[in-house]
Amino acid sequence: MSTAAQKQQQRPTLSSQGLAPTHAVSATDQYGEQREVRVSGESPLTLKVDDREVVTLMTLGTHPELLALGYLRNQRLIENISDIKSVNVDWDKESVQVTTTHGQGISDWQEKLSKRTVTTGCGQGTVFSCTLDKLYGQKLPQVKVKQSLLYDLLKAINQYNEIYKQAGAVHGCALCAGTEILNFVEDVGRHNAADAISGKMWLEDIAGEDKIFYTTGRLTSEIVMKVTHMGIPIVLSRSGVTHMGLELARDLGVTLIARAKGKAFLVYNGSENIIYDCKPEKPKR
Amino acid sequence: MSTAAQKQQQRPTLSSQGLAPTHAVSATDQYGEQREVRVSGESPLTLKVDDREVVTLMTLGTHPELLALGYLRNQRLIENISDIKSVNVDWDKESVQVTTTHGQGISDWQEKLSKRTVTTGCGQGTVFSCTLDKLYGQKLPQVKVKQSLLYDLLKAINQYNEIYKQAGAVHGCALCAGTEILNFVEDVGRHNAADAISGKMWLEDIAGEDKIFYTTGRLTSEIVMKVTHMGIPIVLSRSGVTHMGLELARDLGVTLIARAKGKAFLVYNGSENIIYDCKPEKPKR
Repeated sequence: MSTAAQKQQQRPTLSSQGLAPTHAVSATDQYGEQREVRVSGESPLTLKVDDREVVTLMTLGTHPELLALGYLRNQRLIENISDIKSVNVDWDKESVQVTTTHGQGISDWQEKLSKRTVTTGCGQGTVFSCTLDKLYGQKLPQVKVKQSLLYDLLKAINQYNEIYKQAGAVHGCALCAGTEILNFVEDVGRHNAADAISGKMWLEDIAGEDKIFYTTGRLTSEIVMKVTHMGIPIVLSRSGVTHMGLELARDLGVTLIARAKGKAFLVYNGSENIIYDCKPEKPKR
Repeated sequence: MSTAAQKQQQRPTLSSQGLAPTHAVSATDQYGEQREVRVSGESPLTLKVDDREVVTLMTLGTHPELLALGYLRNQRLIENISDIKSVNVDWDKESVQVTTTHGQGISDWQEKLSKRTVTTGCGQGTVFSCTLDKLYGQKLPQVKVKQSLLYDLLKAINQYNEIYKQAGAVHGCALCAGTEILNFVEDVGRHNAADAISGKMWLEDIAGEDKIFYTTGRLTSEIVMKVTHMGIPIVLSRSGVTHMGLELARDLGVTLIARAKGKAFLVYNGSENIIYDCKPEKPKR
């Protein structure tokens, strides 16, 4: 058997149970008139590993299998994807069952469970404290990025945000290679969207070092941690940053670009990595 | 001793350890120039009840004592505020210690702990499943509200959002009596902001039935649950709703008004409670 085939064999099998993202409902507007509008879905999904409950996530539900994988990866609950045999979603039971090859569940589960932190995250917001220690062992490459590429990427991303445009109440995250959007995921929680992208990278063995991570959401500590864990050195956000998100980015070497809208952006960390090849003209006073 | 004095005695004593909400940092803009900007704080705060860890919240930290109280109330971890003797924050230890009068901690803690759900919430996102059952026993009054009052309230709220205007990356929640803003709290997590308001209501014995709850954030299931638990029948949001937030509002009888900006709004539930006394003129086609 070839190495590629072996590698293929080590990937888990996934169900394909994504939900429709939006629902039609009627609402009454400021004129007192009824209108049909769309709202985004929100469903509980209980993640089980070898029949043991890990957590219940509230999710849009479009990528439940990738979300489960990414959650386990980003929380460092399972280290190797080759330990996962299958990921099966059953919406009747509102659950996703992850089955390991060894059938032993998550190692050191009780210890990990005891140190859960609830974070600022939309849609997620629980982090197992074991994750942070391990992050500091990780070295992100220092990658340069052109201002012109950032502008082209922001333009490309404008074509996405489908669900947000229809129904609002979601955040979007994108995995980008240059100006190409490899993956765009929206969820009621931005952390879920980030995790689903991480799940896809894990499943398809996609490296992070030459990618850019885009999010419509804020850059809090947990998002910076997740992105570092995904090995992505550059983060771009339409929203702002928190002080702890910034401090982590400094410590971990993440280039942090936020408040990116139109031609404006602010580089909070790693400005030496930006190649200013198309500075806009300053507005006249 | 008078009843009022007794009641006073039953209230917990609180430390007063709010953090400054924003930090000055330098960032590089699209012209390649360094600027001093402000970012919002984000600090871990471990909540302990009688020395036992309950959860670690990531918070802006301006109202840590009220946040601790509101978290315990909204999660139904402590039923009566008279059981709480004191709330003391120690930022050196990044912790808030809640001491009960009986010294017994949270009753049925192991059982409650085992059923934690991670929700869509910014800044929080853990709900103990015991909360939902109890909510259905609660009856919210059906309260009418004038469209003109909604417009006046939205105008009044525009004066707030201090931290958001300075540094972004926060959500705001307000407790409103008519057009009066009784309390406006911002936090990196909108759930924290809601909890801090709940803590204040609990501490000062403020009823919810004649109030309006305003939030800049989305109306997900958890926010609707919290507001119901606070006894507030009308919720107003600048953002959208999720399908589960809407379904809960229908079940629990919450008037749900979202996408409120300028003259526009959409009533997703309870439109019969809106008195349309100042419909705007429709734009000509």
